[in-house]
Amino acid sequence: MRMYDLIMKKRNGLALTTDEINGMITDYTRGAIPDYQMSAMMMAIYFRGMNEQETLDLTMAMAHSGDMLSLDDIRGVKVDKHSTGGVGDKTSMALTPIVAACGLKVAKMSGRGLGHTGGTIDKLESFPGFDTGISTEHFIRQVNEIGVAIMGQTADLAPADKKLYALRDVTATVDQKSLIASSIMSKKLAAGADAIVLDVKTGSGAFMKAQEDAIDLAEEMVKIGKNSGRDVRAVISDMDQPLGFAVGNILEVQEAIDTLNGHGPEDFTELVLTLGSLMLAAGKIAKDAAEGRAMCQKVIDDGSALLKFEEFVKAQGGDASFVTHPEKFPKASIIKEIKAPKSGYVQQIVCDEVGICSLILGGGRETKESSIDLTVGLVLHKKVGDFVEEGESLATIHANEAGKCEIATKRYLDSVTISKDPVSKHQLIKTIIG
Amino acid sequence: MRMYDLIMKKRNGLALTTDEINGMITDYTRGAIPDYQMSAMMMAIYFRGMNEQETLDLTMAMAHSGDMLSLDDIRGVKVDKHSTGGVGDKTSMALTPIVAACGLKVAKMSGRGLGHTGGTIDKLESFPGFDTGISTEHFIRQVNEIGVAIMGQTADLAPADKKLYALRDVTATVDQKSLIASSIMSKKLAAGADAIVLDVKTGSGAFMKAQEDAIDLAEEMVKIGKNSGRDVRAVISDMDQPLGFAVGNILEVQEAIDTLNGHGPEDFTELVLTLGSLMLAAGKIAKDAAEGRAMCQKVIDDGSALLKFEEFVKAQGGDASFVTHPEKFPKASIIKEIKAPKSGYVQQIVCDEVGICSLILGGGRETKESSIDLTVGLVLHKKVGDFVEEGESLATIHANEAGKCEIATKRYLDSVTISKDPVSKHQLIKTIIG
Repeated sequence: MRMYDLIMKKRNGLALTTDEINGMITDYTRGAIPDYQMSAMMMAIYFRGMNEQETLDLTMAMAHSGDMLSLDDIRGVKVDKHSTGGVGDKTSMALTPIVAACGLKVAKMSGRGLGHTGGTIDKLESFPGFDTGISTEHFIRQVNEIGVAIMGQTADLAPADKKLYALRDVTATVDQKSLIASSIMSKKLAAGADAIVLDVKTGSGAFMKAQEDAIDLAEEMVKIGKNSGRDVRAVISDMDQPLGFAVGNILEVQEAIDTLNGHGPEDFTELVLTLGSLMLAAGKIAKDAAEGRAMCQKVIDDGSALLKFEEFVKAQGGDASFVTHPEKFPKASIIKEIKAPKSGYVQQIVCDEVGICSLILGGGRETKESSIDLTVGLVLHKKVGDFVEEGESLATIHANEAGKCEIATKRYLDSVTISKDPVSKHQLIKTIIG
Repeated sequence: MRMYDLIMKKRNGLALTTDEINGMITDYTRGAIPDYQMSAMMMAIYFRGMNEQETLDLTMAMAHSGDMLSLDDIRGVKVDKHSTGGVGDKTSMALTPIVAACGLKVAKMSGRGLGHTGGTIDKLESFPGFDTGISTEHFIRQVNEIGVAIMGQTADLAPADKKLYALRDVTATVDQKSLIASSIMSKKLAAGADAIVLDVKTGSGAFMKAQEDAIDLAEEMVKIGKNSGRDVRAVISDMDQPLGFAVGNILEVQEAIDTLNGHGPEDFTELVLTLGSLMLAAGKIAKDAAEGRAMCQKVIDDGSALLKFEEFVKAQGGDASFVTHPEKFPKASIIKEIKAPKSGYVQQIVCDEVGICSLILGGGRETKESSIDLTVGLVLHKKVGDFVEEGESLATIHANEAGKCEIATKRYLDSVTISKDPVSKHQLIKTIIG
């Protein structure tokens, strides 16, 4: 069938068949379908949607468009985790050693990514010597030996998704739930996961602003999981303000270490325990999430999660002394307090704006070629619902340039609203699906 | 504003401003906006539509994207005519000499076009020596001298429409009424018309199958006319069976000459008189359509329309003796009757199929490079509602290859349904708008 006919079919509200979707993705990946036809198709899908079968078919076609990583040589259920992203999201770094300490095998591919801070890969590279470019053989051997490895994406996983996402990104066809769901799931399936725990963010700093949209997206991915024989569970979590206190690469690594030491921020710890409990249940390490949660708490309390993190950093060539001595990490040259202009309750912290502060300071990438300043960022002291006295510190800013420090400070102050009336705190975990 | 933002805006159901549409069309025409963004925009417009102002803005932006033909040197109101096309549509050839004989100035650009038969330009080239490539100066002088000239489109009229139409054609975004209306109207405005009479076809052989869609499209164009200060009127006419009897280039020229002689097919004559009456009224030659119709009838009856046609053919270098002696035109080598397989009333003639018969015989172009056989085609003898005896001729087929003749004959027979019960004739003129 010609691409023209497929566009017409979808435009007219009909469902595409498995063969049609496979043919379309194969042809698009090899360049036999031009971008201008595919972008028209994406816009038609934006308006007409895709049914459960089409969404599964698209996911599988994209997953199979390049290399499929085999994790068969790793014993046990391979559980992956994915977050839809947000400000201050250092979850993987604390979560993976915790669940590995509980006995789960964690073989995680991670990206550098664009955004307010670097990705997990950038953050791990804060440890001197840490190698994220390990071979697949090393990766698999390490998971079998110590239970955890994280590598940069080197294999050609789901190239169709990569090409399609780049096109959607410039044609205003990103925010369609079946397309988002199949994009995320295709990469996870190509990366060899048996089970996947999703952290779907909602709120002003999230891609899905409205909670019902986040739930819809999560349900879509859980359905893909069910239809492709994978155990998929999703947590809907708050991203209406930054997660935890730290925003910035090294600052976030330090907060992850604090959390492994049992004194992380309350909200971040709650998220890590919730995701960890689901991963252990999906990986058949715990009989249910409640048992999983207790196991996670235990490995934090008895120090074995922190030890696992040390072991992991060492296994990938990093200087593990930084785990027990996080004060060894380099610091920014300017460290200043951002003081509250008046007394009251923090009513709102515009989440995206805090991310932009980090970006302004040099902590993130605007383009793929940008370099990252790992030392800069912010550490929040007051979050929504907290009371603050006039002149008390709202946050500490870490900068290396006075001009940028000033701009980011002003921007941070503009992002915070202080109310005379008490404000209730945000509920971090909205709901769990699957 | 970036194209991305414009796509998003339209996708979200908002109206684009005049500046946004102008910028978009200018940038697209000069290649600064890629096809993949424009096709996403077209699909968003397909679903969201455009309001009256947007449709006008798009029309004007496309009209001004290239040369604007000035007809200021022609005295009087310049009235153009446009048909949405169909099978057996030889209207321009009969209509233009009639209205010119009544005193209207007809400066018509015409195309070769793709389809079942050639365009008006191809048909006029049946006259030995006829030159459709005359200069703009010749064109304008001829209109002033004898009242009528028809030239091929040489100027770079509405290049944005040309580029956009080619994109819509391969991305399933052609059939949207605002896009169709602005495409047609932009070309007519660029060609310098003060007033335009539209022949919008409806039925199985038309682009707009449903009468309400044809009416919608006509109303859309009448609105553009009103908003751009042009007098636009539209006839909704039947294309559920071929127009007149002749389908094929020379066969249609001969039928146009028959009509100028006063013995054309009833339906075709009715259409010519209706369109002519509106053109004369729009051109202020007649005080209203009724007077216009009487004038058209008069120039047929007194032979002045035929004389005008002779004068016109001669002025463009053609052998005008063919007008008075149409039997001089070359003939196909195989002329055979297609006989009715049974007696009864013609219930249906699948219009598109008759067009395809002509195409199979070699009378039309499948691609821009195809050459046309001017002699082939069909002459229908029975139309919907007519009674036919078994063995009586349904149509005469004109072919130059026995194999193609056989295929076309079979296809023609398959397209005709004969009923035992009486069937009512089609009403040619459905309604008039504007």
